[in-house]
Amino acid sequence: MLTQTIKTELTDIVGKERYLDKTAELACFSYDSFTEEAMPEAVIFPMTTREVSRVMEIASKYKIPVTGRGAGTSVCGAPIPVKHGIVLCFTKMNKIIEVNTPDRYIIVQPGVVNINVQKALIPLGFFYPPDPGSMTSSTIGGNIAQNAGGPRCLKYGVTMDYILGMEVVLASGKIVRFGSRNVKDVTGYKLASLFCGSEGTLGLVTEAILRVVPQPETQKTIMVIFDDLDNTAKAVSDIIGSGIIPAAMELMDNASMNAIEDAVGIGFPRDAEGALLIEIDGIKEACEKQTKQIIEKAKKNGAVSVQEAKSESEREKFWNARRSAYGAVARIAPDPISEDVTVPVSKVPEMIRRIIEITSRYGLKVSVVAHAGDGNMHPVIPIDRSNTDQRLKVEKAFAEIFKVAIALGGTLSGEHGIGLGKSKYLPLAMSKDSIEFMSVIKKAVDPDEILNPGKFV
Amino acid sequence: MLTQTIKTELTDIVGKERYLDKTAELACFSYDSFTEEAMPEAVIFPMTTREVSRVMEIASKYKIPVTGRGAGTSVCGAPIPVKHGIVLCFTKMNKIIEVNTPDRYIIVQPGVVNINVQKALIPLGFFYPPDPGSMTSSTIGGNIAQNAGGPRCLKYGVTMDYILGMEVVLASGKIVRFGSRNVKDVTGYKLASLFCGSEGTLGLVTEAILRVVPQPETQKTIMVIFDDLDNTAKAVSDIIGSGIIPAAMELMDNASMNAIEDAVGIGFPRDAEGALLIEIDGIKEACEKQTKQIIEKAKKNGAVSVQEAKSESEREKFWNARRSAYGAVARIAPDPISEDVTVPVSKVPEMIRRIIEITSRYGLKVSVVAHAGDGNMHPVIPIDRSNTDQRLKVEKAFAEIFKVAIALGGTLSGEHGIGLGKSKYLPLAMSKDSIEFMSVIKKAVDPDEILNPGKFV
Repeated sequence: MLTQTIKTELTDIVGKERYLDKTAELACFSYDSFTEEAMPEAVIFPMTTREVSRVMEIASKYKIPVTGRGAGTSVCGAPIPVKHGIVLCFTKMNKIIEVNTPDRYIIVQPGVVNINVQKALIPLGFFYPPDPGSMTSSTIGGNIAQNAGGPRCLKYGVTMDYILGMEVVLASGKIVRFGSRNVKDVTGYKLASLFCGSEGTLGLVTEAILRVVPQPETQKTIMVIFDDLDNTAKAVSDIIGSGIIPAAMELMDNASMNAIEDAVGIGFPRDAEGALLIEIDGIKEACEKQTKQIIEKAKKNGAVSVQEAKSESEREKFWNARRSAYGAVARIAPDPISEDVTVPVSKVPEMIRRIIEITSRYGLKVSVVAHAGDGNMHPVIPIDRSNTDQRLKVEKAFAEIFKVAIALGGTLSGEHGIGLGKSKYLPLAMSKDSIEFMSVIKKAVDPDEILNPGKFV
Repeated sequence: MLTQTIKTELTDIVGKERYLDKTAELACFSYDSFTEEAMPEAVIFPMTTREVSRVMEIASKYKIPVTGRGAGTSVCGAPIPVKHGIVLCFTKMNKIIEVNTPDRYIIVQPGVVNINVQKALIPLGFFYPPDPGSMTSSTIGGNIAQNAGGPRCLKYGVTMDYILGMEVVLASGKIVRFGSRNVKDVTGYKLASLFCGSEGTLGLVTEAILRVVPQPETQKTIMVIFDDLDNTAKAVSDIIGSGIIPAAMELMDNASMNAIEDAVGIGFPRDAEGALLIEIDGIKEACEKQTKQIIEKAKKNGAVSVQEAKSESEREKFWNARRSAYGAVARIAPDPISEDVTVPVSKVPEMIRRIIEITSRYGLKVSVVAHAGDGNMHPVIPIDRSNTDQRLKVEKAFAEIFKVAIALGGTLSGEHGIGLGKSKYLPLAMSKDSIEFMSVIKKAVDPDEILNPGKFV
């Protein structure tokens, strides 16, 4: 309970205009893009690291739960304040502090939206590779908390691979810094990596030094269509296995293609079982050579159509089709549930077959989109949540899907995170001792368990 | 003190032949490639994870210090058992467990030598990028403990960037696993990254899943010589700043070049102030294009000679010169002391000037070799350790050099580690609260402080 005394102490720090506690205001911060919700007692918008530190000193003194929040685009419930207390919303800490392309880094506050990092870099010939689906709205702080991925992470790696250093406010309010501006740095533990992906349970990132890379000279975008899903998956393995590393390799199955066709009408044949959107980038001559190799391998694996984007607008059209997949499925039923299992790439064909087999056994529809080159698959089941029977079937189906993924050498979550939705499945992927070890770290770092309590640790 | 009871319990696990405790035997495990030494009371060679676990159970019961060891090539004293106790030497846990190039990983025991990982992969068209100078003898377990770098880490990243998952034995003897075979995996904390670079102070890695990458189609190797050191460094910034990412970019200054010339006679002009060994790799057409760009930029920055390796043997000759630098300096004085500061690449010219200014002020010689593309510099001071005055001067000079590196936005160590040598300088690079946070982690994970005690944490 936030008493009047506590409220006064908190508003003394941030002022009344950056402290919300009216029910209608709070409701906006009670949910994310996951399916549950919980009300905070107050929402605070810090502007500086010092303010975050002072808020945490008070939270620590009174043992008030604190849940960090960026844009609220999480799909696993990570920023939902299940134990109520304070939501610390970082959207006003949105300054780019330094752009240094000669030394290949950018320093940002956590509330900077991913796309604004790109906008600062592109005119200088650089970019920041992690590109989650939410990149036009999600913040770097949220991307770090969730170790966000995205399509081009196939070639470039995920958020963690781009964190050089960070400033963090601990549960106690203490301010610590790890890492530096240097790619090579073995000074002490690699603690920036520990906070990355910790879903706000260990500390609050108040500044991040991100590695940036030069924009490739050019890119090529190819849409390949198969009448057989197995062939689609085989083409993925064949291309990846040959040593080509595309910048992205997105797979859509028949259900996704039909949903996309209904929604945006790109010209997908209705009976095709699989499509691959492949993008490669780099030096012009290399891209041309690899495009030929990819087309050759696609045809060898039975592609019925191969289209190379001839212009930037055609490229946009291809990507728009892929990006619209989730929204397109949402037109089929009000509550599409998207999952996020990952398997080694050679297991993609089997995993897709098993997903289809399991869901059809429960009488459920499924569409599969995947960042196929790294085995990260998003099966989407369109349901109506008010239908309890359907909801239970979905839960059972996904539980089976998770088990299969792990049996194939895969993992519970490739990029969405554990959050609220998946903590009960952790024992499928991790031993009791390994889970307990996470608790040892959590308890040492946040002894009163005030940072995003009630989640996976 | 290892009593007879403890000895019996330990030999019950590994047998007498894998338990050493004679002084002459122990002496071999009292030092690494750093300058200090300390005797263990016993050396144990485990063969399985279970054996490591059982040894740790006993160590934990009797609170015996345990220091992990691979090939002993560390240059910072990391495996020196300063608190005595047991050295756990992993050289007999040297099996490659699985090679899976379609899914781009290799699973190894910690005692596998880095070069043997390469040998298993190269016939399959793949390789494991981290290439520390010690790669022909250092083990993967040691590489992970130290988060090893190397020349081609400029393009490919360091050890941590290639750890997908690992099995670890904790101080208690418990066996835990983090990560998986999947590049994208956000299931729980990124704890594999925490152990990487922790210098054996948090746990003992007993198995590692390493990411592997396709071998590039071709490579080009160029040796560029400058009569001016400043121009050498400017060429580095110019090439890196333009967006080219060489596979390696090694800088040698006049003193290094002369030492190399005396040792291996490669034909370096005696008065040249700097040389750059630049290697690029990738698709043939891309390499040709970038070679031209690099040569152009080198000439624009005043290169007096540009040689492209025309054959594999010429490439080897260039690399042999670079690799011999340390040994060559060792011919000047018995105890060359090599350091490992790193600065943002745009600060390389200033850092080199300051290194020369500081060392000459103390009347010391210095030669500088650097992985210049990522700002990782190895100034080497040739001294005679028996000369106390010289030793003190070196210490003072390096303390000044560290301060300058940090003032320039750099870090204490790029790839060698903190170990024994640099823990006293940590407060230059990290705040009191940040150092204390490392201790919080250490104490939670290893409450009796038995894992590699007496080091930086």
